[in-house]
Amino acid sequence: MKIDKVDFFTEENSIDVVVSRNSEAKDERLKEVMAVITRKLHEAVREIEPTQDEWFKAIMFLTDTGHMCDEWRQEFILLSDVLGVSMLVDAVNNRKPSGASESTVMGPFYVEGAPELEMGANICLDQKGEDMLIRGRILDGEGNPISDALIDVWQANDEGFYDVQQKGIQPEYNLRGLFRTGPDGEYWFRAVKPKFYPIPDDGPVGKLLGQLGRHPNRPAHLHYIIKAEGFQSLTTHIFDPDDPYIGSDAVFGVKESLLAKFDKITDASRAAELEFDGWFWQVEHDFVLAKA
Amino acid sequence: MKIDKVDFFTEENSIDVVVSRNSEAKDERLKEVMAVITRKLHEAVREIEPTQDEWFKAIMFLTDTGHMCDEWRQEFILLSDVLGVSMLVDAVNNRKPSGASESTVMGPFYVEGAPELEMGANICLDQKGEDMLIRGRILDGEGNPISDALIDVWQANDEGFYDVQQKGIQPEYNLRGLFRTGPDGEYWFRAVKPKFYPIPDDGPVGKLLGQLGRHPNRPAHLHYIIKAEGFQSLTTHIFDPDDPYIGSDAVFGVKESLLAKFDKITDASRAAELEFDGWFWQVEHDFVLAKA
Repeated sequence: MKIDKVDFFTEENSIDVVVSRNSEAKDERLKEVMAVITRKLHEAVREIEPTQDEWFKAIMFLTDTGHMCDEWRQEFILLSDVLGVSMLVDAVNNRKPSGASESTVMGPFYVEGAPELEMGANICLDQKGEDMLIRGRILDGEGNPISDALIDVWQANDEGFYDVQQKGIQPEYNLRGLFRTGPDGEYWFRAVKPKFYPIPDDGPVGKLLGQLGRHPNRPAHLHYIIKAEGFQSLTTHIFDPDDPYIGSDAVFGVKESLLAKFDKITDASRAAELEFDGWFWQVEHDFVLAKA
Repeated sequence: MKIDKVDFFTEENSIDVVVSRNSEAKDERLKEVMAVITRKLHEAVREIEPTQDEWFKAIMFLTDTGHMCDEWRQEFILLSDVLGVSMLVDAVNNRKPSGASESTVMGPFYVEGAPELEMGANICLDQKGEDMLIRGRILDGEGNPISDALIDVWQANDEGFYDVQQKGIQPEYNLRGLFRTGPDGEYWFRAVKPKFYPIPDDGPVGKLLGQLGRHPNRPAHLHYIIKAEGFQSLTTHIFDPDDPYIGSDAVFGVKESLLAKFDKITDASRAAELEFDGWFWQVEHDFVLAKA
């Protein structure tokens, strides 16, 4: 027998044996990542002590999740979302200085190429829902206005669908637009009050949510990407604090600082000025960008 | 604002927020399993601090792994195998009393319905490779022979393929058979010396192995499932200790106690008795079954 000093796998040494097998990896970062993944997986197995049946159920869950993925559907991102992993990755990549606006997940419904509009434009092209005025300022950490900031906004419609989910039903670029600030750093545009909506829940992840006693809904929100020369880009949402799901976002995207103020304005002459019908929602939210 | 005492997700409290969201799950075991998985995933993210690009690469790796799975190929089991997870699950489910033979992974090539043969039969139906006699005893923890033990064996051929991998090339049930012990607990059968072989490495898992500087090979082995009334079933292998990959099994299946003795026997008359041509390998290995 020619075997000297080989450490065969045992229940006790499993992590060391598997991790040391990767010692020849050329990519140091991959080696480091796989060491952590291996250690955490083995720790999970030791703690859970899955039966062979449970292990096989996990294999089949991952397989079904993979089979659900196609050009239009990313079930593994959904899985990452509902386990809070996407938000945690967002958090570790977007630690902001105190006072700067916080980020949240981008979500799957962003579309490049939305039209740049004049400040004040109405991005609602399907005439559905409750009118809304959104306004605020883009500021630096000292409270000074940021000029020439580009604000890319998108949101779901009154029925909880994005335009790309209802091609042929909603007008193209419905509820999307780009706005550019002037020297006062102010922005404003018109839209409709968004509604909560479910993440796609007809796949393995939706089934898991059901088994966990969880609903699939995201509270109503508007998406923003804000870019300005010399500042970090900010990808975030603002949320309706009165939404029934505000405390239980299926993907954990809500942060306290992202709750906006939604005021019902019944001043008919002000509504008329905005070409609204009698009353509207007014949302005010400033954003503070961190220095690049 | 109607929000009281909602704990919104932060980088610091992420584990508690996600785990507590599953409080309504009806299946207590699922709740417990998901709590551990969530905690270990979040610990991994905190330690790795993946970039958004790295996170997306992981998503795409899982997606590709899922897409590789079909009726004939289980890429997630391969992934579990090469990360040592399958062996660890086997280990926690098969803790044996001291002295009992150890288990190892079953592998994907087991087939039900192999023929029950007379003791001594030659399971090699394709006349390829180096002749081999395998023999030993099935014993209880006190060293007494176990009568009426059913021994289900299977192995790869001289080229490193199982019959099911070469349908139409190898005869059906080549190198498979069931044997039943008598009162002496002894078993013996004839076969050919197995060869090392690669796990399927043309998918995402094989690519990962390559990036980790690892080969895909499993050292030469024979598979056994041994069952006897009143004893725990034993699923295991015995290995050729002189195999070039004995210290680096791609799936970590080797245990020191599973190394068998392979002796080259050049006694021509003994070979002739066994209907072998001049010489043969003799393998001796006893198995000790744990009480049920």
